[in-house]
Amino acid sequence: MPETLIKVDLAQSPYDNENVHNRWHPDIPMAAWVKPGADFILETYDWTGGAIKNDDSAEDVRDVDLTTVHFLSGPVGVEGAEPGDLLVVDLLDLGPKADSLWGFNGFFSRQNGGGFLTEHFPHAQKSIWDFSGIYTQSRHVPGVNFAGLIHPGLIGCLPDKKLLDTWNEREVDFIATAPERVPPLANPPFAATAHMGKLTGDAKAAAAAEGARTVPPREHGGNCDIKDLSRGARVFFPVYVAGGGLSVGDLHFSQGDGEITFCGAIEMAGWVHMRVSLIKGGVAKYGIKNPIFKPSPLVPNYKDFLIFEGISVDEHGAQHYLDVHVAYRQACLNAIEYLKKFGYTGAQAYSLLGTAPVQGHISGVVDIPNACATLWLPTEIFAFDINPGAHGPSLYVQGDTDLPIAYDK
Amino acid sequence: MPETLIKVDLAQSPYDNENVHNRWHPDIPMAAWVKPGADFILETYDWTGGAIKNDDSAEDVRDVDLTTVHFLSGPVGVEGAEPGDLLVVDLLDLGPKADSLWGFNGFFSRQNGGGFLTEHFPHAQKSIWDFSGIYTQSRHVPGVNFAGLIHPGLIGCLPDKKLLDTWNEREVDFIATAPERVPPLANPPFAATAHMGKLTGDAKAAAAAEGARTVPPREHGGNCDIKDLSRGARVFFPVYVAGGGLSVGDLHFSQGDGEITFCGAIEMAGWVHMRVSLIKGGVAKYGIKNPIFKPSPLVPNYKDFLIFEGISVDEHGAQHYLDVHVAYRQACLNAIEYLKKFGYTGAQAYSLLGTAPVQGHISGVVDIPNACATLWLPTEIFAFDINPGAHGPSLYVQGDTDLPIAYDK
Amino acid sequence: MPETLIKVDLAQSPYDNENVHNRWHPDIPMAAWVKPGADFILETYDWTGGAIKNDDSAEDVRDVDLTTVHFLSGPVGVEGAEPGDLLVVDLLDLGPKADSLWGFNGFFSRQNGGGFLTEHFPHAQKSIWDFSGIYTQSRHVPGVNFAGLIHPGLIGCLPDKKLLDTWNEREVDFIATAPERVPPLANPPFAATAHMGKLTGDAKAAAAAEGARTVPPREHGGNCDIKDLSRGARVFFPVYVAGGGLSVGDLHFSQGDGEITFCGAIEMAGWVHMRVSLIKGGVAKYGIKNPIFKPSPLVPNYKDFLIFEGISVDEHGAQHYLDVHVAYRQACLNAIEYLKKFGYTGAQAYSLLGTAPVQGHISGVVDIPNACATLWLPTEIFAFDINPGAHGPSLYVQGDTDLPIAYDK
Amino acid sequence: MPETLIKVDLAQSPYDNENVHNRWHPDIPMAAWVKPGADFILETYDWTGGAIKNDDSAEDVRDVDLTTVHFLSGPVGVEGAEPGDLLVVDLLDLGPKADSLWGFNGFFSRQNGGGFLTEHFPHAQKSIWDFSGIYTQSRHVPGVNFAGLIHPGLIGCLPDKKLLDTWNEREVDFIATAPERVPPLANPPFAATAHMGKLTGDAKAAAAAEGARTVPPREHGGNCDIKDLSRGARVFFPVYVAGGGLSVGDLHFSQGDGEITFCGAIEMAGWVHMRVSLIKGGVAKYGIKNPIFKPSPLVPNYKDFLIFEGISVDEHGAQHYLDVHVAYRQACLNAIEYLKKFGYTGAQAYSLLGTAPVQGHISGVVDIPNACATLWLPTEIFAFDINPGAHGPSLYVQGDTDLPIAYDK
Repeated sequence: MPETLIKVDLAQSPYDNENVHNRWHPDIPMAAWVKPGADFILETYDWTGGAIKNDDSAEDVRDVDLTTVHFLSGPVGVEGAEPGDLLVVDLLDLGPKADSLWGFNGFFSRQNGGGFLTEHFPHAQKSIWDFSGIYTQSRHVPGVNFAGLIHPGLIGCLPDKKLLDTWNEREVDFIATAPERVPPLANPPFAATAHMGKLTGDAKAAAAAEGARTVPPREHGGNCDIKDLSRGARVFFPVYVAGGGLSVGDLHFSQGDGEITFCGAIEMAGWVHMRVSLIKGGVAKYGIKNPIFKPSPLVPNYKDFLIFEGISVDEHGAQHYLDVHVAYRQACLNAIEYLKKFGYTGAQAYSLLGTAPVQGHISGVVDIPNACATLWLPTEIFAFDINPGAHGPSLYVQGDTDLPIAYDK
Repeated sequence: MPETLIKVDLAQSPYDNENVHNRWHPDIPMAAWVKPGADFILETYDWTGGAIKNDDSAEDVRDVDLTTVHFLSGPVGVEGAEPGDLLVVDLLDLGPKADSLWGFNGFFSRQNGGGFLTEHFPHAQKSIWDFSGIYTQSRHVPGVNFAGLIHPGLIGCLPDKKLLDTWNEREVDFIATAPERVPPLANPPFAATAHMGKLTGDAKAAAAAEGARTVPPREHGGNCDIKDLSRGARVFFPVYVAGGGLSVGDLHFSQGDGEITFCGAIEMAGWVHMRVSLIKGGVAKYGIKNPIFKPSPLVPNYKDFLIFEGISVDEHGAQHYLDVHVAYRQACLNAIEYLKKFGYTGAQAYSLLGTAPVQGHISGVVDIPNACATLWLPTEIFAFDINPGAHGPSLYVQGDTDLPIAYDK
Repeated sequence: MPETLIKVDLAQSPYDNENVHNRWHPDIPMAAWVKPGADFILETYDWTGGAIKNDDSAEDVRDVDLTTVHFLSGPVGVEGAEPGDLLVVDLLDLGPKADSLWGFNGFFSRQNGGGFLTEHFPHAQKSIWDFSGIYTQSRHVPGVNFAGLIHPGLIGCLPDKKLLDTWNEREVDFIATAPERVPPLANPPFAATAHMGKLTGDAKAAAAAEGARTVPPREHGGNCDIKDLSRGARVFFPVYVAGGGLSVGDLHFSQGDGEITFCGAIEMAGWVHMRVSLIKGGVAKYGIKNPIFKPSPLVPNYKDFLIFEGISVDEHGAQHYLDVHVAYRQACLNAIEYLKKFGYTGAQAYSLLGTAPVQGHISGVVDIPNACATLWLPTEIFAFDINPGAHGPSLYVQGDTDLPIAYDK
Repeated sequence: MPETLIKVDLAQSPYDNENVHNRWHPDIPMAAWVKPGADFILETYDWTGGAIKNDDSAEDVRDVDLTTVHFLSGPVGVEGAEPGDLLVVDLLDLGPKADSLWGFNGFFSRQNGGGFLTEHFPHAQKSIWDFSGIYTQSRHVPGVNFAGLIHPGLIGCLPDKKLLDTWNEREVDFIATAPERVPPLANPPFAATAHMGKLTGDAKAAAAAEGARTVPPREHGGNCDIKDLSRGARVFFPVYVAGGGLSVGDLHFSQGDGEITFCGAIEMAGWVHMRVSLIKGGVAKYGIKNPIFKPSPLVPNYKDFLIFEGISVDEHGAQHYLDVHVAYRQACLNAIEYLKKFGYTGAQAYSLLGTAPVQGHISGVVDIPNACATLWLPTEIFAFDINPGAHGPSLYVQGDTDLPIAYDK
């Protein structure tokens, strides 16, 4: 049996677990060391460290303190790893904690993080998803059942000081261009809620003051929320510090491309079984800037899709130049309108797009002035026929359920 | 045998073919009428109407007059189609013209259209792709061979006057925000090179003066450049005018997501065999704004990919807010750098990303401030192993070929 | 455009086309020669040479002279091919003749060939399938529409004299073990209806007297009826004579595993575009006895199946020892009974299993005394839901159609 | 968390676990009862109940007492299930026991069970496969690594007395046709080693005397060894006795079609998480004789294959009439010869065909006198390129490993 290098106790605060951290900083001590070729298990909290409960109230989503996220397990040091190497990570398997076979999805209040469609869904809402083996379903979103494309939303190696400084400078300067914006343009370092693993005292204080927040994906990978980084995948990470320092967290049972609901995919506590090895000098050899990866041979094979197009003209008729973000947003809104014809509420439809193995494709990005994006909705996950036909849609979902909502205080 | 409703003669100018047009306008007369349930064939020019030749010079790409494109075959009227219906189009099959078994890909000069990576590839370049049954390969991009994902880059119904006015107003206003920009923000109506099908005289002049350019995708579909709209797919188009008025053109033998090279995919003259039917009142019944579609059961099944990540920090280090366009651009640049390690020139790599069945996925669009996009490069199309390994890359491509280039005059 | 080396005129008897033959013999002269690396097109008759018509009578199926089949196009000589080489054949594309967009499927009378289920379907019956681009449907088998998995039922190289003698000896000896059996155990050489290509006079008579019949698959490949040898596939054939002598015919628009209906798949006249090359000495290098092949990246991607099990206890309760033939027969009978619950006649169901992209898997062959085989029926080809459910089946097919039947005279 | 209804302790003899049985008989008491809709977990021994060890000796395979197998967990009664119903079983997930992350494959001695190729591999041999998350590899078969297609080899409901009598009569009569055969034609009831679950005393003795052996697949399913009955699949079983009485065992981490090595696939101890429901009267409604099933959306997606053909002429040149068993045997032998060219021993190659996700397809079963079968070998599971090419094969496997062998005493 592979060794579990890091354990987490869901009844304990993640701040009390010294093998967990919630900021990126080169000074965070390795939680454990392994040799190249080793395989091992890391347990993880859900990204909020247990702030969201399996109940029917969205108040926890409304009130969550987003300065505390994401709680990552690690860093793991790999003997012999040096800056410029590629750290090869095989995600041999991963899953939910056996004592926690459920996950959550939600939309943050516009006042506290928002989301991709926060103009349309400005209040905190939540759905709970139960796991039955490889499948999941929700009491808040009836009529669907699908196999999970389990993956870590967040994984990567520690930055070195130079890269950290680049991040902080880049993002703090960016915030300064619109400091009053809600939600903000980016999140600056914030020492008060920083958890720096085994660091204590002054060293901790110093690192906490400049530790990069974990929210955005960056050069090292990080919070990429790539659903296809699933169990069985192989990832090649740039190494910046001696030992690499691999950390992982934010496990998802399933997610649609874009993680549009932000809070988030189907978020869960879980474990990752991985093997590590090295390509010495691989960064230069292969010209690597961001991580690259190979997908798993074992992913849910949904192949019948209903595909929604969107272009970069927003819902108010305004023109945006080759803007894929706007185009995908339109495709999402189009899909939501469609799903409402079958009885779903808007919130249920939005939640579905954030959780199901929906694909978001970039279709055309050169046909001025409009980008085109497509949203691929798998039809096989529905308990009824959602294809269009001469008969028109039927109200398969009867309107007696919806996502709990919590209005801003 | 299905009837060929529209024929094109590649030796003839498309301007001399009255069943072809290159603008969108409700007054363009139907080229032919069919009944619901009918299947028929439309032949098409390549999108430039023959301006690009099967040779080893890029001067034609440099000099092409982009006010002439795209030459579409149609419009086809469907009896009984009324505004608010959905026109169901089955793309039963499509292919290259039997006397023209090749296609082209190219990058426009930055002075004449540009492209997704025009800062890095500012000059006109071209590659020619030969078709061998279901496969294609290029004398300008060695080491690859792949099955075509044949599709129309451009297909849709005629707009009504109100929709046309919306387009023109929206885009002309937009151009006005940066009228000197090169390339321009959008393309306004341009009567001089308009081809309005069977319209003649004053009616033609009036329509040409306000006919919408065919470049962008819009609410009716149009130039979506969705590679997955492939032979065997079923598309549901909103109908705006009596009869629908379906036109099609810009056929591609293959294309990567984004059609990043702009000129374009693997562009070809060809034919489309389609069947049409109607869902009466389908626009309201299903809440349709843009077309929706179902993919084909018969598409190239490449499944082993090398996946490149990109984030919305551009190559100069500048931060962009959740900008998928920038993120995909970075993923493309990352892939090009990688391919160069195997001996490809940058232009060859860029061309490959524009032509091969590369997927562009939207991965994370909520993790402020960075969007994350992924580019999926199928590994099976290469004649050699492009996976990373401890050995490092080998120079499989020997540098004795490249894309022809034509510098600005 | 690739050259069409062999043309066939469907209005002409195949006996009048000297580039066609219906027996295997090393003395058949090459119809054409090509160089390694060449690609070219061969047109083919349907396997019966036009004996079966697009009409609603099964009399042609009843009366067909099975000593005349299969009419093959070739042999094509490849310069430099020597015995012991592997001839690599890329099936670049293939399709129906443009003037013949239909195919037939049928069951032979038990008195004239029979079929896999001839005890249950002892009379000649026929269904006609129309092609609509990549799709096919039949007026005799309503409720289904599917994409063709187009392939040659029969392809291979000429045997040398030694191999030919082995075949004849083996099969004639075998017939002698039950010479009166109906249908016979095998088919011996039969000069009267032999067509030996360009051979004439005494040479023809001599070869016709010993030319092997084309019915069975043998060491060289031949009539393997492997549906997965589809367009885009690459096949490696053993070479026995100088030049190889590649012949092809018996094209199928689609077929279920086993070609259980025998007459046959969806049989059609068509064309094959192929490229040939050589692996010198490949037979010994790779230890090859029968052909090997790699499937195409481009095949219909049906993936939702209803799977029927069968074991090697026959429908009369008799036990057979690890007999996969019997097990698959039971799986087929089980599927037919199931389909009848939805309104299909037995003949329609049988025809469907012979034509649709049904898979036949060998499941267990060691669990004495029963073999287990499975029949995989793709659910997506049906216009209605054929899955089992608490509601029970509905009569989607109304019983107003059936296959034409022709009783023995 | 789902309840574990049946636990097994690998340190305890299965004979001491009253929720396990190794014969089929209607009198075996239910180990547990559940309601329709319930989901629950059953743990299982490996099929031999622990007789085969994780070591490098094949003596245990040589000496195993095959009258003891298979040890099944169950039967589970479903409230309300009546004869004639269909029991719907969702295989929600399954896996190896956490304290036993390995499996075995082997060939029995010809004197003790034999196997598909026992003439070529007459002695007991064994390979051990270690599990690393979703992947497996073996110290005895180097150069391969693949994702498991985890499934139960054996699952089904209890027969009623009438069906049991049919089995016993059929098989005992069959044995009588060649009573001295080695290996035997079938296995008769054998009381001495029967384990009848909770039955004791006279009732046990009576049931043991007539309890059907678990080796063959039969009408109820049973030992079908269908690799595609994998986690995520839904199976519909005929019910013969009140409560159904579902039992399961013989779990496989992976298996090739045919389970040709007989001992067996990659055999493991494990657990099955399943949900049960009923279709009342479903047997008659759907005309069901054997179980039917729908495959999982989540199976290893290997798609690049090297495909070997075999025909029903055996390796001694003897002709067999449309015999798929012989044809598949030839395809297997052809694949083994091919693999030996890359350095594998015959035993390694044979083991690989029994364990990897190899497909066995029935290709042609009507082309007298030869059946054609194909063996599909996934190329992606190899650490090297096994495709044929002009270069010829290289000895990637160096011959320093092989399967342990144990000669008959």
